[in-house]
Amino acid sequence: MQGRSEEAMSERKKLALIVHSGTMDRLYCAFILGSTATAMGMEVHVYFTFWGLAALVKGGFEKAGLPATYKHMEAQMKKKLAEMKYPSLVEMLRRMKTSGLLKIYACSPSMEMFGIKREDLIPEVDQIAGATAFLDVASDAQVTLLV
Amino acid sequence: MQGRSEEAMSERKKLALIVHSGTMDRLYCAFILGSTATAMGMEVHVYFTFWGLAALVKGGFEKAGLPATYKHMEAQMKKKLAEMKYPSLVEMLRRMKTSGLLKIYACSPSMEMFGIKREDLIPEVDQIAGATAFLDVASDAQVTLLV
Amino acid sequence: MQGRSEEAMSERKKLALIVHSGTMDRLYCAFILGSTATAMGMEVHVYFTFWGLAALVKGGFEKAGLPATYKHMEAQMKKKLAEMKYPSLVEMLRRMKTSGLLKIYACSPSMEMFGIKREDLIPEVDQIAGATAFLDVASDAQVTLLV
Repeated sequence: MQGRSEEAMSERKKLALIVHSGTMDRLYCAFILGSTATAMGMEVHVYFTFWGLAALVKGGFEKAGLPATYKHMEAQMKKKLAEMKYPSLVEMLRRMKTSGLLKIYACSPSMEMFGIKREDLIPEVDQIAGATAFLDVASDAQVTLLV
Repeated sequence: MQGRSEEAMSERKKLALIVHSGTMDRLYCAFILGSTATAMGMEVHVYFTFWGLAALVKGGFEKAGLPATYKHMEAQMKKKLAEMKYPSLVEMLRRMKTSGLLKIYACSPSMEMFGIKREDLIPEVDQIAGATAFLDVASDAQVTLLV
Repeated sequence: MQGRSEEAMSERKKLALIVHSGTMDRLYCAFILGSTATAMGMEVHVYFTFWGLAALVKGGFEKAGLPATYKHMEAQMKKKLAEMKYPSLVEMLRRMKTSGLLKIYACSPSMEMFGIKREDLIPEVDQIAGATAFLDVASDAQVTLLV
């Protein structure tokens, strides 16, 4: 975790997220929680699986849209976020990374199912792992959520 | 929290929910968990964001329907709930409120994105806040869930 | 819980899941988490409600498909899982059951709403219960997630 000692890390409160969803609304939800948590000095562990894992592919965050239920609002929401000068998903990810408090996991079984290789993923991924890695961290976290 | 001392509250078990969804099935899920928890004497903190925040607008709960996947079952489900004399979402919210154990948060960035003002929201909202307020409470909660 | 003493169980770490979703992607997510947790020696408590409860009906897991947003990928995903010889949802459930660490709850209000009776459900269901049963267990769990 970028130069912080393991001991110092272990004293911090932890947020453990599973990101199962790959739609823009849910990815923003995960990243707003993650950004807020790192700003509060919490460790943030985010495990991307299924549609979330697919979003970790290079260019994936840029392509994320709204789910079927809200598809008709997609253009309007993107316009509004641009007007608000809201940071993009990739920008939010990079800002969180600079805190040294974010760890990104890519779900290995999902990679196999979607035929995705390590080199297809964005470089911000810290670890390719199965669900054991998530449950290990989550067991020790104060807040656990599935997005 | 309506006349209970902060000390007495802090000894209670806590349920912290983020409601990201605005569909009827998920809102009922959140309110059934919330009602059950208040009946068990737990504190219940519900943070509404995204589509959930949109449902907090006056008249929003009444308009909530099913997501695209289950849209064809909406009329049938509403009829069944009426036959069961199941309380409406607004009725459930008001009952929970009378326990003095429920606190409702409206996500301020979502309000900006959807162009929603304080006076547009139902009066049961206790606090307009960012994700910090949720993470503060959730860090101290026994059960944390995203709906 | 199949021959383990209550005392021994209470020392184990616990994963408490609410399965609200009835689609294949989310059911797999729940069962992969559950299988991994039992393999790690954790107790796993899974409370099926709403669309998740409907999946507990005999033949329900076999019929589960993808949500509207991803419906166009359903045939391809099922083909890929078959090629990977990935266990079916029912096989995963049975394997978890043999660990003696899995407890399945069916949500009683959802059963009433959908007109589902005990004999309609698969025999792996351990208990028909309201949300109190879930919150009791979840209050004592290290990891709580809503799928």
